[in-house]
Amino acid sequence: MEKKLSVEYTFKVLPFEVDFRGKITLPNLTNYMLVAAGCHAEESGFGILEINQNNHSWVLSRLVIEMFHYPEHYDEIRIETWVESVIRTFSMRNFAILNKDGQALGYARTVWAMIDQNTRKPVDLTQTAISEIINNNKECPIEKSGKIPFLSGEPHETFSIKYSDIDINHHFNSSKYVEHVIDAFTLHKFHKRDIYRFEIEYINEGVFGETISLYKQENPDNEFFVELKNENGQTLCKSRIIFG
Amino acid sequence: MEKKLSVEYTFKVLPFEVDFRGKITLPNLTNYMLVAAGCHAEESGFGILEINQNNHSWVLSRLVIEMFHYPEHYDEIRIETWVESVIRTFSMRNFAILNKDGQALGYARTVWAMIDQNTRKPVDLTQTAISEIINNNKECPIEKSGKIPFLSGEPHETFSIKYSDIDINHHFNSSKYVEHVIDAFTLHKFHKRDIYRFEIEYINEGVFGETISLYKQENPDNEFFVELKNENGQTLCKSRIIFG
Repeated sequence: MEKKLSVEYTFKVLPFEVDFRGKITLPNLTNYMLVAAGCHAEESGFGILEINQNNHSWVLSRLVIEMFHYPEHYDEIRIETWVESVIRTFSMRNFAILNKDGQALGYARTVWAMIDQNTRKPVDLTQTAISEIINNNKECPIEKSGKIPFLSGEPHETFSIKYSDIDINHHFNSSKYVEHVIDAFTLHKFHKRDIYRFEIEYINEGVFGETISLYKQENPDNEFFVELKNENGQTLCKSRIIFG
Repeated sequence: MEKKLSVEYTFKVLPFEVDFRGKITLPNLTNYMLVAAGCHAEESGFGILEINQNNHSWVLSRLVIEMFHYPEHYDEIRIETWVESVIRTFSMRNFAILNKDGQALGYARTVWAMIDQNTRKPVDLTQTAISEIINNNKECPIEKSGKIPFLSGEPHETFSIKYSDIDINHHFNSSKYVEHVIDAFTLHKFHKRDIYRFEIEYINEGVFGETISLYKQENPDNEFFVELKNENGQTLCKSRIIFG
């Protein structure tokens, strides 16, 4: 199998993937990136099915997206992805979101760990096939994720984890976290502005049936923090959202 | 423009469109059918953009799906659609859900009205281009939708209509109704059985920010009724779900 340092997949934005303005929603864009990452991993010999045989699994730890321009329904977009680096138990995978002519609409950075499903401990990635496809030549011109503070006080709202939130790994789907976070904002907010930068740090996994509390803090300059906590007060994820 | 009495579109089921069992979810299957219907309408000269110019719009009134076999992630499926009949202000559009070899996995029936967006009154469809593509030759071997009773008592749960629920027409998305209805069931229920028949009757439109109450009634033989009501007690939709 030939290993490619950088791959590209094409998606056509369908009408049910856009919001009330006709622009793709962040959870749907996240879905595209997860599909692209999954395909590249599979083609490179460390896809989820492959590593499951050794009782290993991929866990998304961080995601940062910056969008200069949101594609709209029926737009064809290209998602390019490559692994920037591997540092012990973490791999840094980047994405360029391009229009059909190859112009950048945005970029994303993700951090992944591979865990042993029995021990829940991370695997040393420098000893795996992923270290063979590190691509130092491509630039990802957005800042890495920063520190996001924990929130306290009264929750903004609560919701429970349902059938549609749970993915094939029986986990609260990574893009569903994104959906619940952005659903903390009103149509009014999106009417005036786009999300320019979105950061999320995945900490604990949600479980079917749990009641989740959503905490939200507004900062100056259209910056917001959103955090999801489970019934035991454990943080599922922390997020930082900047409207442009 | 050549008008086709029956058209077929191919979709590849992506990993984020399946549930915890790896089977496509009903809201995602509904999305595929809405895309197929939209494309066929557009190719036939009565797509949403075309009729919007006369201040008209399509409104989905009823949807029935029967599935014998649910496609799984990475399956390629074909959605065939045709208009069975037009009766004054209603058009009956049917669907066959086929695997890549053309074998039927399920069927669906929908009922649509075209409304004048100013008066909110239905348009006489027998005078429109849709009457030119009626296809009497294709069979849709599932029963039409039946009467679904109104429910009362205490709501099973409540939720509010959020950013992700609202589509490009600023309406509560038709497939999001389906998602909220099936989210009234536990993973345990889906672990043992598939939804064999799903019926929904769309009555009123949900509005952003409204609190929706979900009512649920269990009947013998794995049959359920689910109803969504808004804050004023108006019914948004009534649904009948049969697990097989």
